[in-house]
Amino acid sequence: MITHNEYFNGNVQSLALQGHDKPVTIGVMAKGEYEFGADAPELMQVVVGELNVKLPGNSDWQSFKEGAEFHVPGDSKFQLQVPVDTAYLCFYG
Amino acid sequence: MITHNEYFNGNVQSLALQGHDKPVTIGVMAKGEYEFGADAPELMQVVVGELNVKLPGNSDWQSFKEGAEFHVPGDSKFQLQVPVDTAYLCFYG
Repeated sequence: MITHNEYFNGNVQSLALQGHDKPVTIGVMAKGEYEFGADAPELMQVVVGELNVKLPGNSDWQSFKEGAEFHVPGDSKFQLQVPVDTAYLCFYG
Repeated sequence: MITHNEYFNGNVQSLALQGHDKPVTIGVMAKGEYEFGADAPELMQVVVGELNVKLPGNSDWQSFKEGAEFHVPGDSKFQLQVPVDTAYLCFYG
């Protein structure tokens, strides 16, 4: 069963895969700005597009393009600027 | 606006990105077997998982794993065996 979730009025949507070692979701963020909260640690990879990210405890914005990835610590919040509709992969745990 | 579509009773679901040079969708196929029809030519890339594909006019199954891609001609049908929930990218045109 593929679980579909929507956030930010449908501007961020994700699809969850089952049967892998760790929980994996793939999703799309529409162009825009967002603040996400992470309960558990996450590894995010950009598949198509670009994410500009201000990670927790960091005052600088970092740009991640196709194939790039970044870690998000658990129990944290982080800011995203998305300059173009962007597809991402997220591995949890 | 991110468009969410469901096929095969929700066992295949896709999310469409806008603002790129060509139409792009990202999606997930649940473990199973499917026959797809392509109206226009497509380039498919495996992001997570594995697709076993019998392309049009081909009697052999070919395996495509993470990072691999294949072309599908327009106005065609092709068969897929999906051994594990798989995320894919599809570029049209």
